[in-house]
This record gives sequence, C-alpha cells and structure tokens, in this order.
Amino acid sequence: MKELKLALLGFGNAGQAFGRMLLDKEDEIKKTYGTEVKVTAIATASKGNVYDPEGIDLRAALDDVTASGRFSEKHCLTKLSTMELAEQADYDVLVEMTPLNIFTGQPATDHIRTAFRRGRHAITANKGPIAWYFRELDHMAREAGVCFFYETTVMDGTPVFNLVENTLKMAKVTEVSGILNSTTNYILEGLAMGIDYDVIMERGRSMGFIEADPAMDIEGYDAAAKITALLNVLMDAGITPDQVKRKGIEDITIKDIEEAASRGKVIKLLCQGVRKDDGSVEATVAPVEVPKDDILAGINSTTSIVSITTDLMKKVSVIEHEPEIEQTAYGVFGDLLRVLDRIAGER
Amino acid sequence: MKELKLALLGFGNAGQAFGRMLLDKEDEIKKTYGTEVKVTAIATASKGNVYDPEGIDLRAALDDVTASGRFSEKHCLTKLSTMELAEQADYDVLVEMTPLNIFTGQPATDHIRTAFRRGRHAITANKGPIAWYFRELDHMAREAGVCFFYETTVMDGTPVFNLVENTLKMAKVTEVSGILNSTTNYILEGLAMGIDYDVIMERGRSMGFIEADPAMDIEGYDAAAKITALLNVLMDAGITPDQVKRKGIEDITIKDIEEAASRGKVIKLLCQGVRKDDGSVEATVAPVEVPKDDILAGINSTTSIVSITTDLMKKVSVIEHEPEIEQTAYGVFGDLLRVLDRIAGER
Repeated sequence: MKELKLALLGFGNAGQAFGRMLLDKEDEIKKTYGTEVKVTAIATASKGNVYDPEGIDLRAALDDVTASGRFSEKHCLTKLSTMELAEQADYDVLVEMTPLNIFTGQPATDHIRTAFRRGRHAITANKGPIAWYFRELDHMAREAGVCFFYETTVMDGTPVFNLVENTLKMAKVTEVSGILNSTTNYILEGLAMGIDYDVIMERGRSMGFIEADPAMDIEGYDAAAKITALLNVLMDAGITPDQVKRKGIEDITIKDIEEAASRGKVIKLLCQGVRKDDGSVEATVAPVEVPKDDILAGINSTTSIVSITTDLMKKVSVIEHEPEIEQTAYGVFGDLLRVLDRIAGER
Repeated sequence: MKELKLALLGFGNAGQAFGRMLLDKEDEIKKTYGTEVKVTAIATASKGNVYDPEGIDLRAALDDVTASGRFSEKHCLTKLSTMELAEQADYDVLVEMTPLNIFTGQPATDHIRTAFRRGRHAITANKGPIAWYFRELDHMAREAGVCFFYETTVMDGTPVFNLVENTLKMAKVTEVSGILNSTTNYILEGLAMGIDYDVIMERGRSMGFIEADPAMDIEGYDAAAKITALLNVLMDAGITPDQVKRKGIEDITIKDIEEAASRGKVIKLLCQGVRKDDGSVEATVAPVEVPKDDILAGINSTTSIVSITTDLMKKVSVIEHEPEIEQTAYGVFGDLLRVLDRIAGER
C-alpha cells in the first residue's frame, strides 16, 4: 500500500471536520487509489503541535480536542512551530488552514512557499495566499511540478475553480460576479424583514457564522478578498484586495432598504469583476439594488452564488445552499482527491 | 500531427454551430493536443449525406447549407444511409445529433451501439439514448474501452454530468431536481404576466425555442426524458421516461396562476428524483407552487436550473442563463475535448 503524508496547519472547526471526513473515507480512498493517507503533523495556535513521521492517530487527536481542547501526552507533542513543521516535517501535502490575515495573506503564504521550495504539494483553505500572492505561488508550483489546489477558498467545496478548469475547457472567462459574503447577506435579509439589527447579529452568532467582530464582513473586506481570489485564478487578474473598489453595507439604512422595496428591489452586496478595454481587470464590491424577481434576490441567508461568463458558454451560475462545516471540509477533501488523481496519473 | 476523425450524424442548427466552433478552435486544438480534428462523414435527413475518409471541407459544407440547404456536388456525396455511415465510415468519434424520438430513443441508440461495437467513441447531444438505454450503452462503452459522453443532453454545455464526475468526487447523489423545460417555463411566466397564450406562443416560436407542435413540452414529456437522463447517470436509477410520474402544464389555468400569486407563489414545472427506502429512484414531473422569493421563482424565460444533493456537499445548483445555439454546440465541443484528453492520457 502506497502512502501519502499530510501536514495539517490549523485544526479548527474546518480542520477537525476534514479529519473526520478523512477517517470516514479511509477505506474508500484505499480501495480507489491503493493509497493510505496519513497525517504526520498537526499545527495549532492553542491546542499544541503534534508530529509523528509514522502517522498520528487521527481519531485519538480528534477525541482529545473534543474532550479537552488540547492534544494529550499520548501523542508525539513537539516544540516545533507551525513554520518549523512546514520546513522540517515529513509530508507530501501541506494543508494550509491557519487563520486568515485578510490584509497580508501571511503567514499562510510563507507556509505554502516553504512546501513548494521543498517540492511538496499544497492545498489551501485560506484565501489570503490566493488573494495576495496567487501568481507567484502558481508559478512556484508549476516550476516545482507539484499540485496547488484552493477550491475551498471561495464557497467551500462548491465547484468554482474546478468547474472552470475541468468542465469549461477552452472557454475564456470574461466576467465574474456573485454574492459571496454570508454575514452581510444575512443582515440585509433580516433588516428587509424588519428584524432589529441586534437580534439579527445575535442569531447569526448563535448559528456560528457571524464573527464576534464582524467588521471585516460588514465593510466588505471578506467579499473583496474572495472576488480577488476568483479574478486572480479565473481571469489572471494579478490584483490584490486593496485594489478592489470596495463599499460595504455599513452605510445602508432601514430607509434605503424600504425605499428599494417600494421600487420592487432588494439590496444585496454584490461582487463583480470585468475585463476593461486596456486588458486590466476591474473589481468591485458594493451594495446594489436587484429586482425582487431576479435570481440574486433569492440568494438568502448563508446561501451564496457565483456567476461566470465565458465566451463559449455565456453565463453559468453555481449556488451553494446554506453550507455547514462539512462543506468546507469537503473542499479540502476534494482537493486531496485531485492530488491523488494527479499522482495516480503520473505513475 | 495526429488525426481524430468525426462522423456527424445530424447537421441541424446545433450541428452547424458545432461545425463553426470546430473551425474557430482548430488552431487551439492543434496547439493543445497536437491533433487535427477532421470530419469524415455528415449524415442528414434533408441536406444529403457526405462521406470522405480524407476529411470533408467543413467550411464549404457549412456555406453550402447556409446558401442552399443542401450539400453541393463539390463534396463527396454518398448514397450510404445514416446507419450505413455509422457502420462503415472511417471515424474515431461518432457524434449523435439526429432528431430525438422521445418515445423510443431510436434510431439514435442503434447508431451509438454500432459505434461501440466497432470500438469507436461516441458523443450524443440526443437525450433519447440516455433516457432509454443508458445502462446498456454505458456498459458497452466500458467493455469496449471507449468514451461515451453526453453533457449536452441536459442544459446544453452547462456542466451537470461533468460537474458530478469531475468536481464532486466521492460524493453520492441522493436527490436531483430542476426546472429543465424552457417552453413551459416561458409559457408559465408569460401567463403570470397576463400575456395572452397565443401571443406567448407566437413570441416563443419567433425566438426559435417553441416548437411548431409544443405538445411534447407542454405535457411534460421533454422534462420527463431529461430528469430520467439525469437520474440514470447520476443515481444509477435504471429507469425509462414512461416510469416518471408525469403531469404537464396543460391543465394549469389563469385562475390557478392568479390564486398562487395571491398566496405569494408562482407555478413552475418542477422535475424531481429521490431515492426511496427500497433503493429504487422515484421520478416526478409536475407543476408546483414555489414562494416568490425562492431561487426557483427567479428562473425565468429560457433559463434553467438543476440542483444536485449529495451526502458530502448537500445541495449545489447550476444555472444556465438564456442559452443560444452556441451553448448547445459547446456541450458537444466540450465532450470532444474530453475525448482528446482521454486519448492524450492513454498515450
């Protein structure tokens, strides 16, 4: 049986859900690829770091974290830092799931650079590197002849990047748009229903998708990072999130929403990117009014949509319906399967 | 330069658009695959049949059809019938685009069987074979070690079958639903807007997507064939269109639509398939009332949607926005690229 060793950088809710999915699908992976996937390193900010080149007992690690929030002594605890694990640990695939820094894309980008320098594959669920350093990282991966997959960075495991690469072959992307931020979408929907702002925020927090400090969402930074990632990959835009014309929903009032409703419209925070005549790509995030009978008006709660216009297939849209943490995990899992496919094809 | 020879069975609007796309992308295909794609046979019901094992002048053939509706003497006209060309012509890929017989799937199925018996690849834009004989044809293709692709049969080139196969790996489909018939969708929308039935039909016909005799659409036969095709491929349903619980829009009255509107609903012809407890798959086509703020309510005119629920990714939907004939052509073209990919991978 062949082996594929993973280093998991970050082991929060999504990392743990990915770990459970790996265990659930262990037999199917062995059967399909003749390969045993082992986790050799797990790096976290608060649970400790674990490293065992022979493979960590993933089920026990998950149980530990559930029970106590930390890895217990029965694992090979290590003093190596996250970056030192990226540099020194024995792994074939680095899985980047550390917390996002939306203004720098670091240290996630450095983790991935390290993997590529070592000739290892990388999967990232962290959109920072794709929004800030995509061209460089993509180039490094190609030079090293390794995989670089990042489906999870926009709309979890919903096929967006893979959709274009694997199912819209030879079609050239001319425009991308979408509703990509759940928090603002949920807030706008709640306000339109006449619910008090504080009540909306409390509900969203109790459901787990509104952050303690939602400023990054409300001011459109998260949406800007996502549209940047989409445009960098799908249109070779070569832009960074600070170049996006960004306007959040912070200035939207109940009166704005009511006035839009009186015109048969609803307000949505829309992301858009188009190629300009000079060849550059212009990205925008802004609240826009859409007709109530438009598809976009039906994208509510934590549901999101991305629309991709190409020369050969016109506009095709993909919708992710009210995802949970398993859908994030599947994004990483699907990318892992693509690594396994690639390796199988090379043998 | 390697060669790949195509036999085109059927050369109507979609076939001609596919021919134009082939010419447009000739250089890109040569560059990407090192392969020259040649059309060696074109079979039609009314334009004559052409066969040249060295390759037909496709541009001249298109010009002929545009100018006179028939192939001229400058081509190698042949007395061989469509089936005889399938049996005897020199080709690598049979492209099935003959008119649909929604009640039998023939003679398209026999054309494809013939290709497989000869060890040739087949692409079908005709949904009859997928709705009536999918398991048998899929088995034949696997036994023969050849490609069998059919993306175009539902929602043109919009990735549906390819989406599941290439981007939702290891996810098991548990439910499929959608709005898949443009004619009924356009009629229901028009009636809800208070437009007279005859005016709606006249507009739809002038725009080219309502048939002279729309009974197959209105009574739900077309939708039933499409949901059957989806379920046969995505859920291994092994059903035929006559097993679908089918109800068209023929009995929907203006009063029904108005009453639905008074309850905040719109009527849509919905296709659905779910797996029952006994393991069988139950398929339904019926008019249903959906809330006005639902995504389905926003699927208007010739836009269509399919929603695919899987164990790992919950519900993901794909929308095709107001397709034209080029989007049908792209379905066939994308399948051809997949054949080229497969061949390249085998070398």
